[in-house]
Amino acid sequence: MKKRNRHSAQVYIDGVLTGDRVILSQAITLVESALSSDQMLAEEVMSAVLPNTGKSVRIGITGVPGVGKSTFIERFGQLVLEQGLKLAVLAVDPSSQSSRGSILGDKTRMEVLSMDKRAYIRPSPSGTTLGGVSARTREAMLLCEAAGFDVIFIETVGVGQSEIAVKGMVDFFLLLMLAGAGDELQGIKKGIIEMCDALIINKADGENREAAKRAKREYANALHLFPARENSWLPQVLTCSGLEGDGLESIWEMIETYKNKMISNGFFEANRAEQRVRWMHDHIGYLLESSFYQNEVIERSIQEELLEIKSGNVSAIKKARELVQIFMNQIRPE
Amino acid sequence: MKKRNRHSAQVYIDGVLTGDRVILSQAITLVESALSSDQMLAEEVMSAVLPNTGKSVRIGITGVPGVGKSTFIERFGQLVLEQGLKLAVLAVDPSSQSSRGSILGDKTRMEVLSMDKRAYIRPSPSGTTLGGVSARTREAMLLCEAAGFDVIFIETVGVGQSEIAVKGMVDFFLLLMLAGAGDELQGIKKGIIEMCDALIINKADGENREAAKRAKREYANALHLFPARENSWLPQVLTCSGLEGDGLESIWEMIETYKNKMISNGFFEANRAEQRVRWMHDHIGYLLESSFYQNEVIERSIQEELLEIKSGNVSAIKKARELVQIFMNQIRPE
Repeated sequence: MKKRNRHSAQVYIDGVLTGDRVILSQAITLVESALSSDQMLAEEVMSAVLPNTGKSVRIGITGVPGVGKSTFIERFGQLVLEQGLKLAVLAVDPSSQSSRGSILGDKTRMEVLSMDKRAYIRPSPSGTTLGGVSARTREAMLLCEAAGFDVIFIETVGVGQSEIAVKGMVDFFLLLMLAGAGDELQGIKKGIIEMCDALIINKADGENREAAKRAKREYANALHLFPARENSWLPQVLTCSGLEGDGLESIWEMIETYKNKMISNGFFEANRAEQRVRWMHDHIGYLLESSFYQNEVIERSIQEELLEIKSGNVSAIKKARELVQIFMNQIRPE
Repeated sequence: MKKRNRHSAQVYIDGVLTGDRVILSQAITLVESALSSDQMLAEEVMSAVLPNTGKSVRIGITGVPGVGKSTFIERFGQLVLEQGLKLAVLAVDPSSQSSRGSILGDKTRMEVLSMDKRAYIRPSPSGTTLGGVSARTREAMLLCEAAGFDVIFIETVGVGQSEIAVKGMVDFFLLLMLAGAGDELQGIKKGIIEMCDALIINKADGENREAAKRAKREYANALHLFPARENSWLPQVLTCSGLEGDGLESIWEMIETYKNKMISNGFFEANRAEQRVRWMHDHIGYLLESSFYQNEVIERSIQEELLEIKSGNVSAIKKARELVQIFMNQIRPE
């Protein structure tokens, strides 16, 4: 159990709404808590700040390890700050379960950003289930919005399930790639490309510049083969150098263009509405499991049941059904 | 709704236990079904075949797109068959959600294996939640074991959450990598390396051979810096060429060595016992959500609630709590 200050709901609410970073961080820690009493408090805080959320641009950034995400975010983030905007960077890193958190502290990875008062960097929540991590990330994002941040980056690691979760909470999804890193067009999964709104060929600098241009053409051709999207956006392919800064302005302009188009065709709000629905479903699952595991009868018997499961003498799914039945019967006298 | 034959539990059980592939495939389709009646039938089948499971070696295989997983599995799988063993290949691909399934059919990716009577290839279950996909994959794995397969490959795509799920169901976890693909030692997440039992530098052929050897040395040095594991296994680093077949025998020997060591030090069974516990927890979550969404009162009101959520006038988490409360009250007269 981490030691921390727990405030009244009003202290969190006022602190977040006035942009107090210390309180913001504590509020995020609160929503990450698994304690039932914290959850109630967190919900109260979330509901109170909700009218002050929704005004940021939410940008998901993904790419395989080694693609240069940290450097990209460090530079691209500075460009955002130069527009006079405040930036929050959140990370979703479900892969780092054993070590419970990022390897390199997120702040070390982004030295300049982390020193800048206009930027707020929140390291990955320590590993629980992905559903938990993504739900908490969504709440962290809303808290940052309520605290006045104009742009939110949500960084994910790897190409897989966490991207689906993040796609479910952002407005724009950037996929970083490298030129010439393997079977380009075949290697990357169609599913990921279908999710992203732009492909960025990173490290387009030095000797790599020509290869990046070629890759850009190839991807752009390939993207034309995909079916049209319901929002009628054709995913863009751009090159950039996170290290030297080239191409970052075009990326920002593209995101602005996207945002304006989506607002005018109604997709921006429709997408956010769908995301809220997903959020509710996620939270229902979370609450159901909390009620189950915090139920007294279940709490009393679960350890013994686990021993039986470990022995291998009973089927895990059969036992699961029995326990759920006990839970149901116990709250429903038949 | 897919049209299919539904049999009695006994037909599935007998068919699976006698290794009938058509029935095996139908049984896997049954466990993948979201229908409540199918779930009950599936549990009956699973419980009945359970005593005949557990005898295979379960091998997880992961790596980023482009690393050559299909070619590796195609060749490595043939080596398994040459040992006189029967092989099943299952794929977990949560990334391909929009397209509902793998891009390239899994069978096309593994031409030789898919033609061989001693091998069974099961394409990815179509996208639902990862929890769902991984739970169903575990059941598919057990069905394959009951049908007499000696070795199971579980392939995952990408580096992230699906690996955590697969790690939770296999005995041995292989991470495929490439030499010289980016910031080698920094790029790959510690969390993934901590999960894997061996790093394989693939595509160690032609001009790439020397680079692969260098990468092997570097990774091996890096792995020494990791804390010792509870099972006292030091993850191995090997090179191979999935294309030409070099190095595959050493990988198989390493897996055999691992298996024998883990059986004698007790970790093999202890690990599987933990995995069964996780399976039970997963299934509890699944059953709780099924009961909720199939509850009559919830079914009647959920559409209207969703409209409210979409409007953005109410907090998704507050509404989630209300609905869970209604569900609980409805089955508990207060």
